[in-house]
Amino acid sequence: MSNLSLRANLSPIKGIRIGITQAGIRYPNRDDLVLIEINPTATVAGVFTQNSFCAAPVQVCRKHLSQNTPRALIINTGNANAATGEAGVIDALACSAGVAELLQIEATQVLPFSTGVIGEPLPLKALIKGLAPVFSDLDENNWERAAAAIMTTDTRPKYATRTFEINGGQVNLTGIAKGSGMIQPNMATMLGFIATDALIEPALLDEFLKSANQLSFNCITVDSDTSTNDSVILIATGCGEVQIDKSNQELFFSQLSELMIELAQAIVKDGEGATKFISVNIHEGKDIDECRLAGFAIANSPLIKTALFASDPNWGRIVMAIGKAGLSKLNQNIVNIDINNIRIVTNGCRDQNYNEELAANALQDPNIVIDVFLARGSAQATIWTCDFSYEYVKINADYRS
Amino acid sequence: MSNLSLRANLSPIKGIRIGITQAGIRYPNRDDLVLIEINPTATVAGVFTQNSFCAAPVQVCRKHLSQNTPRALIINTGNANAATGEAGVIDALACSAGVAELLQIEATQVLPFSTGVIGEPLPLKALIKGLAPVFSDLDENNWERAAAAIMTTDTRPKYATRTFEINGGQVNLTGIAKGSGMIQPNMATMLGFIATDALIEPALLDEFLKSANQLSFNCITVDSDTSTNDSVILIATGCGEVQIDKSNQELFFSQLSELMIELAQAIVKDGEGATKFISVNIHEGKDIDECRLAGFAIANSPLIKTALFASDPNWGRIVMAIGKAGLSKLNQNIVNIDINNIRIVTNGCRDQNYNEELAANALQDPNIVIDVFLARGSAQATIWTCDFSYEYVKINADYRS
Repeated sequence: MSNLSLRANLSPIKGIRIGITQAGIRYPNRDDLVLIEINPTATVAGVFTQNSFCAAPVQVCRKHLSQNTPRALIINTGNANAATGEAGVIDALACSAGVAELLQIEATQVLPFSTGVIGEPLPLKALIKGLAPVFSDLDENNWERAAAAIMTTDTRPKYATRTFEINGGQVNLTGIAKGSGMIQPNMATMLGFIATDALIEPALLDEFLKSANQLSFNCITVDSDTSTNDSVILIATGCGEVQIDKSNQELFFSQLSELMIELAQAIVKDGEGATKFISVNIHEGKDIDECRLAGFAIANSPLIKTALFASDPNWGRIVMAIGKAGLSKLNQNIVNIDINNIRIVTNGCRDQNYNEELAANALQDPNIVIDVFLARGSAQATIWTCDFSYEYVKINADYRS
Repeated sequence: MSNLSLRANLSPIKGIRIGITQAGIRYPNRDDLVLIEINPTATVAGVFTQNSFCAAPVQVCRKHLSQNTPRALIINTGNANAATGEAGVIDALACSAGVAELLQIEATQVLPFSTGVIGEPLPLKALIKGLAPVFSDLDENNWERAAAAIMTTDTRPKYATRTFEINGGQVNLTGIAKGSGMIQPNMATMLGFIATDALIEPALLDEFLKSANQLSFNCITVDSDTSTNDSVILIATGCGEVQIDKSNQELFFSQLSELMIELAQAIVKDGEGATKFISVNIHEGKDIDECRLAGFAIANSPLIKTALFASDPNWGRIVMAIGKAGLSKLNQNIVNIDINNIRIVTNGCRDQNYNEELAANALQDPNIVIDVFLARGSAQATIWTCDFSYEYVKINADYRS
C-alpha cells in the first residue's frame, strides 16, 4: 500500500537508549538484534498473546515482569523461539542473563522478545555474540533503526511519535511496532514498544496500556491468525517534565491511544499482500462485544476480502458475514449498510437507489469504509483490516523458502 | 482437484420423480430449474443454515415444513433470493404456489430452494415460465442431471448412491449436493437433497438427518463463510421393501452418514481453487466441542492453507492455530502432531527425527492428513477442508463479473 504515512524525526525519550546490530540470527547482513536499555526509575507495563502455544520469550517476559521491574528489552528477529519447549525457555533465560551481565543488572530485569520462524531452536550462540555490539551501539536516537531491525515480512518500518503539553510541561511519546501476517492480536500485536518520558505509577501505566490496547491492536486483523509471540510494552521513564496521575490523565490517554491506533493501522496497511485499507464500523449494536463479533466476521471473511481486492461491491457477502457472526435474535429486516458513504443496503435488502457502477467506482479507493447499522442498541466498534490478494497467497506460499 | 470420485448409475428412488429445465434465471442455455416430486406417503426432514441473514426460501421452507408434509421441492440456481426482504419471501411463496397449482397440492406442501448471487430480486417471471417444462420432464432417472443443474461455482456435479439390505429387503439411498464457496455450513451445506425408498417415521427421520449432518456437512469448511441458503433435505418415500425403526436403524444410519460424508467431502474437494484435500483429525481432546474448535482453527487458517498449497511443512502455523483456538488450560508441552503419518511435533516442539525434505515430499500428496494429539482426554473430531490457492483469489475476485 502506498498511502502509509510515517512520521520521521521520532522524539527520543529521555531514559531510553537503543542499540542495534547484525547478529546473523537467520540472514546475514541485516539488523536483527535490538537492545532497549531503560533507566532505573522507569515503570513498565506489558500485554501478551493469549495463544496457548505462546512462545518461550513470552513465558519468560510474564514471569520476569511479575518478579522485577525491567531495565532492558532484548529483541531478535529471524526466529520466534516458539514451539521450542523447555529448551526454548532455557535459551530465552540465557539471553536475559547475557544482557544482565553486560548491564550489571538482574536477569529478571531483562525481558526477551523473538519474532520470525516458529519451531526452530534459537541460534543462541549468534545472539550472545551480538550482545557486545548492541551494547556499544546504545544511543537515544536509534528508534527508527530499531523499527527497521525488528521487521520480518513487513515491507516498511512502523513508528509513531507525539509531543504535547500537560500542565505546562512537555510530554514525549514514541513507539515502534512490527507485524504483517499472523495478525489478529488477542491482547497485543506481534511486537510493539512504546515509551514516554512522563512519570506514571505502575498500576496506572498498566491500566493505560490495557485500555489503549483494546482500542488499537485488539481491533485489527490481517488473516484472523493470532501469533504465538504477540507482545506490547509501554515504558514510562519519568525523566521528563510531567507526572501523569488521575487528575491529568485524559490528554495523555487520548494521545497514547491515538499513537497505538496509528501503529496498529500501519500494521494493517502493511498487511501481507494488502492493496486496500478497510475500516469496518459496526453501529447501533446491543453491546461492544457483539459489534466486535460482527466486525471481525466481516473483516475476516475471505469472500469479502477477495471481492474488495477486485473493487467488487459484492455486498451480499457482507450481509452473509453479519448473519454468520452469531448475534442473538438479529432482525435482518432493519439492518442498513453504507460503503464509502454510499447507502447500499436498506432494511436488509438492496437500497432502491443502489447503482452498481457507482458502488464499484467508490471501491477503487484504496481506503474502504464499511458502516453497518444494526438498529438494536447504541454500542459501536471499529475493526481495521486489509484485502486479500494474489500477493497474500504468494507471500505465504513462499515464506521460509 | 482431479481425484474426485463420482459414482455413476445412481439408484432411482421409488416415489421420487425429478424434472429439469433451462429457465434462463441468470444465464441462457444452462439447466437452472429443478422440480423434485415426492409421493404422498413420504416423510421429509430438513436442516437449514443458522445464518441470521437466512434467505427468503429458507424462511419459507421452515414455515412450510412446520405446517405440512412436503410433496415437492423447487430449486433454482443463478439467484439466491437472499437479502431480498419481504419481497423475496413473497417471490418464494409465489414460486411454491405455482408448483402447487401444477401438481394440484397445497402451496405449503412445496419447499423452495435458491442458490446463486445474493441481494438481487428473484426473476420470478422466468421461474414461473419454467414450471410447465420441469413438470413435463418429471422422471425417476433424472438424479445426475439434477446434480449438474443445481451447480453454481461448482466445477463438478456431486452425487452419491448406496444399495444395501436390511432384514432381507433392499434399501436404496441416493443424494445430490452442491457447494464450492461460502462453505462452513452450520447445520447444513449449500444444498443437499437425499432420498431413500425405506419407510421411516418423521421423528426418526429427523433424528437421522440431524445426527448424520453433524458428522458430515457440519464438519467441512472451504473458507469459513456460512451461506445464507444452506439446506439439506432427507426424504423417505416408503415405496421400497423395508421399514426402518429403532430395531434395525444401525445399518441405515451408518449408510446414510457415509453417503452424506461422501457428498460433504465432494464439496471440499471441489472447493474454490482447491488443489489439496485436507483431513484434520483432533484426538485425545476433553470433549468433541474442543476438538471441533481446534480442527476448525487449523482448517480455516489462511496461513496453513496457503502453506499446504505450496507443500510447505510449516508446522509452526499448525501449533499457532491450535493455540489460538481458545482451549481452556491447554498444555502445549504434551501435544503431538503427525502429518501424513510422519511425526512432526513431539511434546510441543519439533520432533528429534524431523526431516524437512521428507515432510515436504509427503506434502506433495494431494491428500493431506493432519493428526493432532492433545493428550488431555479421549474425544475425537475430524474436519475436512482444502488449500488456499491463487485460483481461490481469482475465482472470488472475478465471480459475478
